[in-house]
Amino acid sequence: MLHQSAISSHSPIGVFDSGVGGLTVVRQLRQLLPNEHIIYFGDTARVPYGTKSEPTVRKYAAEDTALLLRYEPKLIVIACNTVSALALDTVQETAKGVGVLGVIKAGATLAIEKSEHKRIGVIGTQATIASYAYQRELHRLNKDVQVFAKACPLFVPLAEEGFATHEASKLIAKEYLAELLDSRIDALILGCTHYPLLKPTIQDVVGKSVELIDSAEAVAREVKAHLAQQQLLSDATPQPPRVLVSDMPQRFRTVAERFLGMELGEIELVAL
Amino acid sequence: MLHQSAISSHSPIGVFDSGVGGLTVVRQLRQLLPNEHIIYFGDTARVPYGTKSEPTVRKYAAEDTALLLRYEPKLIVIACNTVSALALDTVQETAKGVGVLGVIKAGATLAIEKSEHKRIGVIGTQATIASYAYQRELHRLNKDVQVFAKACPLFVPLAEEGFATHEASKLIAKEYLAELLDSRIDALILGCTHYPLLKPTIQDVVGKSVELIDSAEAVAREVKAHLAQQQLLSDATPQPPRVLVSDMPQRFRTVAERFLGMELGEIELVAL
Repeated sequence: MLHQSAISSHSPIGVFDSGVGGLTVVRQLRQLLPNEHIIYFGDTARVPYGTKSEPTVRKYAAEDTALLLRYEPKLIVIACNTVSALALDTVQETAKGVGVLGVIKAGATLAIEKSEHKRIGVIGTQATIASYAYQRELHRLNKDVQVFAKACPLFVPLAEEGFATHEASKLIAKEYLAELLDSRIDALILGCTHYPLLKPTIQDVVGKSVELIDSAEAVAREVKAHLAQQQLLSDATPQPPRVLVSDMPQRFRTVAERFLGMELGEIELVAL
Repeated sequence: MLHQSAISSHSPIGVFDSGVGGLTVVRQLRQLLPNEHIIYFGDTARVPYGTKSEPTVRKYAAEDTALLLRYEPKLIVIACNTVSALALDTVQETAKGVGVLGVIKAGATLAIEKSEHKRIGVIGTQATIASYAYQRELHRLNKDVQVFAKACPLFVPLAEEGFATHEASKLIAKEYLAELLDSRIDALILGCTHYPLLKPTIQDVVGKSVELIDSAEAVAREVKAHLAQQQLLSDATPQPPRVLVSDMPQRFRTVAERFLGMELGEIELVAL
């Protein structure tokens, strides 16, 4: 049980993602759990994961987890939907006894709760949708649910480039979401960390009768419940999250602050 | 002079790119030089490079070059504009005596040739544009040229997702290209391997008075001139290109064939 001995309520929560998108999870965690110390790692040198194969995503996920373990976290949160979908078991094995929470189970649970007619849409990266992870999890929770899934790969670059509310994004959203609307869904899981930035555009296209399920918000609730149950909730003084990245590209700070919704202090460049 | 001894006219041409986009260069090479054997490597496990930092692009470029050297090429072609812009010297050092051609010099030379009023626009990834490599090369070739540059990061995912001629791409192109048009350019360098797929959309937005410069076409001409000068042109029977990748994601073949303009045989997965 590596690291277990060092864990206390004051240990940090480790959060990782393929890049900057997981900062939407950090944002939700900070709102719900302001006293927690968060260490975030974004694998910006190899982003994105969502267009890559399962073996490659597993390899990267193991390396990301090993990096977070250096900081002796009390819990590891997989902010990346693609990793949660394809490599949850890899992260659990690598984490050796440290608790691991992913966004898939959290998002699926919240969707079932909010959907009246149990007709649920899921959107995400190609890798996430092709893995059937959301579909499986939803059926495990409720065998009568009908699930309609669609990969929306352009939403990630549109969000990163600040086009989230642009007319072009609306045109693309209309095209991507047409078949989900034809299927009369009443809830739609935003199964990618970037998608919350497109919420107004997506809501506009799907209409008010469809409830948007933010998996970042959902996982923050699960983290709180998990820490409470383990008696690991912190009462420390709030402090800004520590942000680590594997590459520091142009404009990283601007994009990161857009996702986090606050100004960032030092951003640390680390080697995997 | 590593590998030099093994080089002959029948040695392959090694071409590499961050991903699938460099197949537009292979397509041009095959048209112009049908008797050449081409080995292509796409670093699909770490694509894209154009949003990453110079140190990371240099590291990846050195590893890509080392991989191609295993096949004893007579020439290495950097199909990736980002690598040509940020890491040409790194590739040259790693190639140890094997000739190296990048797309930047080729594209700049062709643009000067085609532009009447020497008002030239350049579009590319964030990293390419921020490097000033095209701007520097154009000024080196002709000190009176006026250069106007603009990063168009969404063009890459739009091309990969098959949205090249979609109305949304036209809206985005209009926004990206407005300031270049205000500057009354008469030639526009497509400084990214993906952009040739958007040619009809870009031409539509900039109008017929602006000549589009395809750097893939330009580098193919330079390769022919270089091999002729070195007496290394092949007269072998035409054969399909050999395609190596570092990751084999979903739908890779479909996207690759769209860029190459032909059906592909076996695609080989290699470790860096």
